[in-house]
Amino acid sequence: MIRVVKEGGSIGIDFIRQLKLRSEETNKQVEAAVAEIIENVRTDGDKALLAYTKKFDGRIPDKMEIRRDEIKALADRCEPAFLNALQNAADNIRDFHMRQKQQSWMNTRSDGVIMGQRIRGLAKVGIYVPGGTAAYPSSVLMNAIPAKIAGVDEIVMVTPPGKDGKPNPEIMAAALTAGVDRVFLVGGAQAVAALAFGTESIPKVDKIVGPGNIYVATAKKQLYGTVDIDMIAGPSEILIIADETANPKFLAADLMSQAEHDVLASAILLTPSEKIAEQTVAQIYEQLEHLSRKEIIRQSLDRFGAVIQCRDVDEAVAFANELAPEHLEICAANPMEYIGKIDNAGSVFLGNFSPEPLGDYYAGPNHVLPTSGTARFFSPLSVDSFIKKSSFIYYTEEAMKAAQEDIIRLAKAEGLTAHANSIEVRR
Amino acid sequence: MIRVVKEGGSIGIDFIRQLKLRSEETNKQVEAAVAEIIENVRTDGDKALLAYTKKFDGRIPDKMEIRRDEIKALADRCEPAFLNALQNAADNIRDFHMRQKQQSWMNTRSDGVIMGQRIRGLAKVGIYVPGGTAAYPSSVLMNAIPAKIAGVDEIVMVTPPGKDGKPNPEIMAAALTAGVDRVFLVGGAQAVAALAFGTESIPKVDKIVGPGNIYVATAKKQLYGTVDIDMIAGPSEILIIADETANPKFLAADLMSQAEHDVLASAILLTPSEKIAEQTVAQIYEQLEHLSRKEIIRQSLDRFGAVIQCRDVDEAVAFANELAPEHLEICAANPMEYIGKIDNAGSVFLGNFSPEPLGDYYAGPNHVLPTSGTARFFSPLSVDSFIKKSSFIYYTEEAMKAAQEDIIRLAKAEGLTAHANSIEVRR
Repeated sequence: MIRVVKEGGSIGIDFIRQLKLRSEETNKQVEAAVAEIIENVRTDGDKALLAYTKKFDGRIPDKMEIRRDEIKALADRCEPAFLNALQNAADNIRDFHMRQKQQSWMNTRSDGVIMGQRIRGLAKVGIYVPGGTAAYPSSVLMNAIPAKIAGVDEIVMVTPPGKDGKPNPEIMAAALTAGVDRVFLVGGAQAVAALAFGTESIPKVDKIVGPGNIYVATAKKQLYGTVDIDMIAGPSEILIIADETANPKFLAADLMSQAEHDVLASAILLTPSEKIAEQTVAQIYEQLEHLSRKEIIRQSLDRFGAVIQCRDVDEAVAFANELAPEHLEICAANPMEYIGKIDNAGSVFLGNFSPEPLGDYYAGPNHVLPTSGTARFFSPLSVDSFIKKSSFIYYTEEAMKAAQEDIIRLAKAEGLTAHANSIEVRR
Repeated sequence: MIRVVKEGGSIGIDFIRQLKLRSEETNKQVEAAVAEIIENVRTDGDKALLAYTKKFDGRIPDKMEIRRDEIKALADRCEPAFLNALQNAADNIRDFHMRQKQQSWMNTRSDGVIMGQRIRGLAKVGIYVPGGTAAYPSSVLMNAIPAKIAGVDEIVMVTPPGKDGKPNPEIMAAALTAGVDRVFLVGGAQAVAALAFGTESIPKVDKIVGPGNIYVATAKKQLYGTVDIDMIAGPSEILIIADETANPKFLAADLMSQAEHDVLASAILLTPSEKIAEQTVAQIYEQLEHLSRKEIIRQSLDRFGAVIQCRDVDEAVAFANELAPEHLEICAANPMEYIGKIDNAGSVFLGNFSPEPLGDYYAGPNHVLPTSGTARFFSPLSVDSFIKKSSFIYYTEEAMKAAQEDIIRLAKAEGLTAHANSIEVRR
């Protein structure tokens, strides 16, 4: 099932290339269908939105917006232990993200010049939350809490109705816990388009975040520029670097926790220890049988899984930096000493008791992370994802006098004489 | 030439809509041509790059890379006063952007948990610098200095050769001043593709920034995701809010300094004062005759310029927030009191001695700003544009024990049993 490789160096680059190709599958048919949906929602608003809802979800909801008291009533139906766990997770996420908050600043000079950078939350943000079997309350927390901390005025959530035509109670509980302001029971590319343009019912937002199927992802990509979006997410991956002190039982469990997401997910173990490699493979076979999503796990490990016995830890680190994985676990005797060597990774999990699901649900850092090698240049979702900055400049007449000759010279060197004129008229 | 409107409210929304349409012109032919260039450079590297260089620039350069000593020799040819002005501008830009630098941080808890956020500069950044009549040394400073401060290891500049086949000396001087590491004499979509994939000669980078023509902009957009890009820039604009204390001579000059960029640029004055409105229009006619780019200015003002007499300052501010202009000048007796009212603007210029060209060249804040209303959600180019963040989590066995039941509950609520298993094996 999972490939086992004895010499890491021999497979490195080709395997990485193969993994990166996962994200390059585009679908012309989907693109055309989504472009049409977007155009119709832009032109016809609610009318188009409801027509698509009927077509794709099978029915038109009585009303699109879920009232606050309805959200509360649905949340109250959840188990108290679940609500308690959700609240603890939200507290941790809030604590971590509060530390990311940047302040506006200004600098004043003795010649009267004042300059600075203002930082404010976006006015309105839309959060897409998938329905059905992929209804993830954790995703609501991870997307809404940083927006709230950033100072976003209004957080609007869209989510498709369940098979019974009703909202998912756990999702409603998460919306309440995270501070979502309004909830609409619509989904698909049509909901994304409605958020981007606004309709009679749905407010127009400045940024759309959150996971979704290929229609949702394609709609976000096509609307980038009309609104901001979080990122172009590809299939997910975990890379584990383990030394001889690691626990094969843990390693196998962690690889499979990633593999269960999706048949395109990738789970790779790199270890210099032959024993760890062999025992981990054995543990995978043993544990797999008890897991409900074993078919997905099997397919994912088959295509994009690997246990690689590498020469040494340096080789493993080089492989990690080349792959730039979304999740990187370092299961080693002294994991801290590796952190400075890691150039590219979305989130780094250090030691034997920091498995990836700890980060997915609970510890505090965001679980929306750059995938498919984009950790080279993209960053985890954060409070910074929900702010807008603007600079300001106040110059006095005196300061302008001191600067004017330089500015005129630079403007003229660029042939922009009206720029020079704007300084000259102030002489 | 420039439209004059007596009642601001009556034209507001339609005019804004018309302005925003400027950025929505896409060109299918350009898109197809660029897609082909990208595919060929990806497959054939230098061979394709040189073939396109020959086709579009008329000749193949003897060698693509400009050596350090050649850059210095070219820079030395510039006028000393120009070099001095460039250095002063660079000092101001550096001073402002140094204040944007974020630090990595960590949080340690008494139960042994350590979490934090690492911040590092991108490894390699590519800067596109146009050649010909649009060769702007100021653009080199504005793009390279924040990258340098962010800690980027290697800044690679590409710029097309001049008509004589040689690099532009002012551009080389700016590259030297700003700390650009390598310079290649290639341009167009093919140079952008070369930076994104790497070729035998050109290093592969993580992010591509800088202005360019429609081929360059389209290439950047198509390669977004393979690399990061700065922003999707549309035509530029200035909005000036002036009270009765403003100077019509200054206002006219500032409107035209924006209009000279491009026939699609937009320059708008909003003032409650009939006198200021009339005198500004008169000043535009008077000053225009002396400006070398008067044809561009005339066309730009014709289509996208306006002097609007509004009811009061509140109406002007509401218009500004709706338009979300790239540049906003506030020429008023006490400009500071407006700053808190401005929700959306790339850069705000306060008072009568802070004209927009001061920001374009000299004061320190970046001149790469969100255009066409995207200041609602995009921000000026900054040090943050050249960093990557990653989070890290270290949990102890004790901390994991305290968290495990909550995590298992959340994972099971989402149906992700392999996630729950990864916690359970650690019990």
